Amino acid sequence: MRTRTASFLIAAAAYFACPAGPALADEGMWLLTNPPAALEKDYGFKPDAAWLERMQKAAVRFETGGSGSIVSRDGLVMTNHHVGSDMIAKLSTKERDLMEVGFLARTRAEELPCPDLEVRVLWEIEDVTARVKEAAAGIEDAAEAGAARRRAIAQIEQESVEKSGLTSEVVTLFQGGQYHLYRSKSFTDVRLVFAPEEAAAFFGGDTDNFEYPRYNLDACFFRIYENGEPLKAQNFLEWSPAGAAEDELVFVFGHPGRTRRMYTHAHTAFLRDWMLPTILQHLWRAEVKLQTFAGRSAENARVAREDMLSIANGRKAFTGLLAGLHDPALMDRKLREELDMGRLLMEKRLPEADEMMRAVSEIGEAQSYHAEFYVQRFVLDRFLERGSGLLARALRIVRLAEELPKPSGERLAEYGESRLPALYLDLYSPEPIYDALEIERIASGLSQMAEYFGGDDETVQAALMGESPRARAEQLVKGCTFKDPAARRALVEGGTQAVAESEDPMLGLARLLDPISRALRQRFENEVDGPEKRGYEKLARARFALLGDNVYPDATFTLRLSYGTVKALGEGEGRVPAFTTLAGKFERAAEREGEKEFRLPPSWVEKREKIDLSVPYNFICTADIIGGNSGSPVVNRAGQVVGLVFDGNIDSLVGDVIYDIRTNRAVSVDSRGIVEALRSVYEAKELLAELGVR
Amino acid sequence: MRTRTASFLIAAAAYFACPAGPALADEGMWLLTNPPAALEKDYGFKPDAAWLERMQKAAVRFETGGSGSIVSRDGLVMTNHHVGSDMIAKLSTKERDLMEVGFLARTRAEELPCPDLEVRVLWEIEDVTARVKEAAAGIEDAAEAGAARRRAIAQIEQESVEKSGLTSEVVTLFQGGQYHLYRSKSFTDVRLVFAPEEAAAFFGGDTDNFEYPRYNLDACFFRIYENGEPLKAQNFLEWSPAGAAEDELVFVFGHPGRTRRMYTHAHTAFLRDWMLPTILQHLWRAEVKLQTFAGRSAENARVAREDMLSIANGRKAFTGLLAGLHDPALMDRKLREELDMGRLLMEKRLPEADEMMRAVSEIGEAQSYHAEFYVQRFVLDRFLERGSGLLARALRIVRLAEELPKPSGERLAEYGESRLPALYLDLYSPEPIYDALEIERIASGLSQMAEYFGGDDETVQAALMGESPRARAEQLVKGCTFKDPAARRALVEGGTQAVAESEDPMLGLARLLDPISRALRQRFENEVDGPEKRGYEKLARARFALLGDNVYPDATFTLRLSYGTVKALGEGEGRVPAFTTLAGKFERAAEREGEKEFRLPPSWVEKREKIDLSVPYNFICTADIIGGNSGSPVVNRAGQVVGLVFDGNIDSLVGDVIYDIRTNRAVSVDSRGIVEALRSVYEAKELLAELGVR
Repeated sequence: MRTRTASFLIAAAAYFACPAGPALADEGMWLLTNPPAALEKDYGFKPDAAWLERMQKAAVRFETGGSGSIVSRDGLVMTNHHVGSDMIAKLSTKERDLMEVGFLARTRAEELPCPDLEVRVLWEIEDVTARVKEAAAGIEDAAEAGAARRRAIAQIEQESVEKSGLTSEVVTLFQGGQYHLYRSKSFTDVRLVFAPEEAAAFFGGDTDNFEYPRYNLDACFFRIYENGEPLKAQNFLEWSPAGAAEDELVFVFGHPGRTRRMYTHAHTAFLRDWMLPTILQHLWRAEVKLQTFAGRSAENARVAREDMLSIANGRKAFTGLLAGLHDPALMDRKLREELDMGRLLMEKRLPEADEMMRAVSEIGEAQSYHAEFYVQRFVLDRFLERGSGLLARALRIVRLAEELPKPSGERLAEYGESRLPALYLDLYSPEPIYDALEIERIASGLSQMAEYFGGDDETVQAALMGESPRARAEQLVKGCTFKDPAARRALVEGGTQAVAESEDPMLGLARLLDPISRALRQRFENEVDGPEKRGYEKLARARFALLGDNVYPDATFTLRLSYGTVKALGEGEGRVPAFTTLAGKFERAAEREGEKEFRLPPSWVEKREKIDLSVPYNFICTADIIGGNSGSPVVNRAGQVVGLVFDGNIDSLVGDVIYDIRTNRAVSVDSRGIVEALRSVYEAKELLAELGVR
Repeated sequence: MRTRTASFLIAAAAYFACPAGPALADEGMWLLTNPPAALEKDYGFKPDAAWLERMQKAAVRFETGGSGSIVSRDGLVMTNHHVGSDMIAKLSTKERDLMEVGFLARTRAEELPCPDLEVRVLWEIEDVTARVKEAAAGIEDAAEAGAARRRAIAQIEQESVEKSGLTSEVVTLFQGGQYHLYRSKSFTDVRLVFAPEEAAAFFGGDTDNFEYPRYNLDACFFRIYENGEPLKAQNFLEWSPAGAAEDELVFVFGHPGRTRRMYTHAHTAFLRDWMLPTILQHLWRAEVKLQTFAGRSAENARVAREDMLSIANGRKAFTGLLAGLHDPALMDRKLREELDMGRLLMEKRLPEADEMMRAVSEIGEAQSYHAEFYVQRFVLDRFLERGSGLLARALRIVRLAEELPKPSGERLAEYGESRLPALYLDLYSPEPIYDALEIERIASGLSQMAEYFGGDDETVQAALMGESPRARAEQLVKGCTFKDPAARRALVEGGTQAVAESEDPMLGLARLLDPISRALRQRFENEVDGPEKRGYEKLARARFALLGDNVYPDATFTLRLSYGTVKALGEGEGRVPAFTTLAGKFERAAEREGEKEFRLPPSWVEKREKIDLSVPYNFICTADIIGGNSGSPVVNRAGQVVGLVFDGNIDSLVGDVIYDIRTNRAVSVDSRGIVEALRSVYEAKELLAELGVR
């Protein structure tokens, strides 16, 4: 019996993947305040405080959902083309499509101000766990405890803003196990410096997305301005003259958006059986609808392009993740981890054993409540918040009118005092609004509600007002009075009364749907989020008790350190080398000749003879990344740039729930490939000089 | 009060759309045994028996789901390219893609035999209503009554086959109001004579599909052989030398697949809220999955092409229909028709009034039962029957083993004795099977089951056998032993024992899923189909009582006559003329230059100078058609071919539930456009001579 238990424990240890167990080699998206001890053990490298601070303060978060880094003392920021493309599209017109032709500012004066971009640099971190937990101490009811925590968080944030003047955000770590206050410098004057053509950046399109080998210049450069002058950056990353070598240790600093590795088995099953199928149904539908819209004219295709890219990218990522979860072996592993953890706690006679088992059961129960209204809430909120640019703005205006009169701590979290500057920046953005696309999206959203709720549903009928979805969408968009940012500002400044009295049909729709959305949100917070938070707090305690505190929390779109080595995939015949070269791009283009996704832009065709084809172009490494890491710098031990993360391979898509070093790879543009393209294709000598490259 | 009632009745009459009310001008898909009286009243034309018989016996049904007509005394059959494309793709190889390059046989010897095509010509019609109803008379339970009717139908069919030697099928008309026995001549030696390039036939692709104006040569020709010789056709259609003129009366003879105009309001709501959203979710998913598969290589794109076309076509058709149903005005009209009919019956003090109201309520109740398992049954059966060529065959083999030992009347209807020849033809077809596509489709189907039923569902787990969907799909396809038709025949001939003992994994999957599918089918027949049939039988009686018998039944993929006039759409600036010309094709191609869907094939570019661009190419008319009518001939009063139906406009898509002469149009290739293309582009002088055209 003893023997069986012992060998079982050995087997269990092998199955352990953090956060449920100790991190495996190269696994983890680590807090900079708690870097992985394994670094020293496995690689003999121990980052010191100065090194970490330099990396932290050179790392940039794009509030649109991506990462970047400061790479010159004049505030030059490097990120992915696909992180910048939202801006690049907004700066484009029918006559001058920067996605199509690219952009290069040869002087500061030529740099293009982005209408509504905010980037942030993390400046200070404070552990506020005790204060947040204290606020909910002794409150039995999970929903009430949740509300108390939200109030405490809003207050901490507001106090911090008042005290420091910095953007302040309390981040929930370990699904409720810890709370950190992050103070960041926010920059809203950001200008476009360089972008290649989309055909160079997204070569291979949807076909090659999440695949390897790759041949993509998925890079662009912005510049941060402060008080009308280029930022004088104290901390920035230097360019490595040599690039990375095979098997070299490298680091990734970035903002992984979300992982669910701590999820219990039941919670992961909810992800598999409810969330992902619902999201994918939405994306499949949206992709086909938008393709049809884009097919109608070249201008439609242009204005829908950004949405198309985003939908196709999401579809491919979620498909890969769901495929992973449909593998019974993966779900078995999740279940075994959970059982093993409970058994280990019992073996060690730790008091957290009971707590853990209760937590697992409570979290499981929350999933069954969630299943009752998840789809309804998803469809409604997706429509309200992302179904159309105008409707999303209408919702903000309606909610601001209701929330602003309340004390900050009583508001919906995203309307808290500390969150308002970013919200206004977005709401008053002068980005172009395309009526045809808005009508298409609203008609699609109204139809989708009718598909899911039924054509006789009261809300659907009220939203349609006796019209067909398309006719109603035309009324709504044509009748909308706040397409101009000034009109939106006037409504917000007019407050509750102005909004209540407005006869704008789009505001009317937002007013109609808002209470339903709020009720569902309340239900979610009471029946799901509250119990989950309480459960995961217990699970985190159990995990700390078992593993100590050198563990990493699930990703939260905040700054993390990942690490690993540049490494080929597979062995023998199927081996995929770690590096590709520029020659490979031309070979792949020839192989797929005639296909739109593989067309080289004219600049590359023209300059082919000048390009040194032997230069490394893209590479893979074992660093543990996920969506949100796009645009992260890859640096060497000296903290110099050797690459730029732009993708994960197809097997990394299950990274949302597990990490597997055998198959997981981050895909990066090689710093040498970037330099060669800037030099030989784009002749961007000013930019090269600024990077310190001859 | 009287006044109000009277004016209400007038208003009601205006709202009446058959089958719920008397047919409006040009509305209806009429039985040839009961042609529309309105023809004489509105157009002064009364078709005589000889004319009708000639049309009937020149009309051809493609068992793959389309219509055609015999257009020469040597059995030449005209249909759409998109009806023939299934065959054209099967006759293609990697080296010689007939979809891409087209085909023309200049001699009989060059004509290409189709591997598994069956076409039928309707020969005799017998009303067997009394006998079918008699079989269920006095049986109170709807499910038992349904079973009794199915037994009677199987017996009638089998007796007819034995007596006449003709293919015999009892068709349920008026959703159970009448039963007709159709005896048809079946032909299985059919050869391809001519097909243009897909780029000429499907010019404008998905973008222009269901739109007008159009510029498509959606035509191809086959030849029926009998005993190894071209069919000596007694009845065939002559070619009109003049073509059709604007406002001319024309007729369409074809096989509309299915309409639901007699559906009650509740039944239509089920269509809107359950069937269409479920089907569309499936199609959106399938379209995106298949596009991704096709994007991986040119060969993938080729083998997936037919599926892609079919999915995109269905998606566009169902989207149009659902958009119509999401218009509250349409649903109101359905409801008013129902209420008005009840009121009229009561006004006239007809005994059918009570019966009608009970029927409406019973049919409504059946919908709520159906909602409980509709999605589950749809997903399972779609996977089993259409998810993969190999799995569909496995299901047939498994079911044949179980059904054949039973008496014909006790079997699943499609395994009845009279249905077997067509079933074997399909099962033993030597059409190519592409492993890569099969794996893709099975993996997708297994994932879809997991998405809908949940990853922990017993059936899903049993189907996956511990593997991921993709790994399991590879096992199934690679391990399949009956890719060769001879192996399938051996299994069927080996009977129950051979099938039970087979270790083929694909047969194993079919054996696993078959009982679940059967149980759901049983539930459908008992809880839904039985009560519906009983209800609609009552409704039909009520309608006959109110309107007499000059009404048309919903479409049933059997021969019908539609009629109308060649007519432009709209008025003033938005007017769309009835005819397009060949010149328009080149203009549209220039307008959309660079887009794949609008690329002209090399033959058209090359011969451009020779083409008479003023010749009419496509036209629209008001005839009431629906899917299944594709390939129907359009004839004039003399019964001569003036066109070839290939599409309906976007507003005709609600034709499934209503007809509206203001917006509904059938789209046809003009006979003169066909001739000009055959003459100047394809130089098919032999074909022109056979059509009697100089």
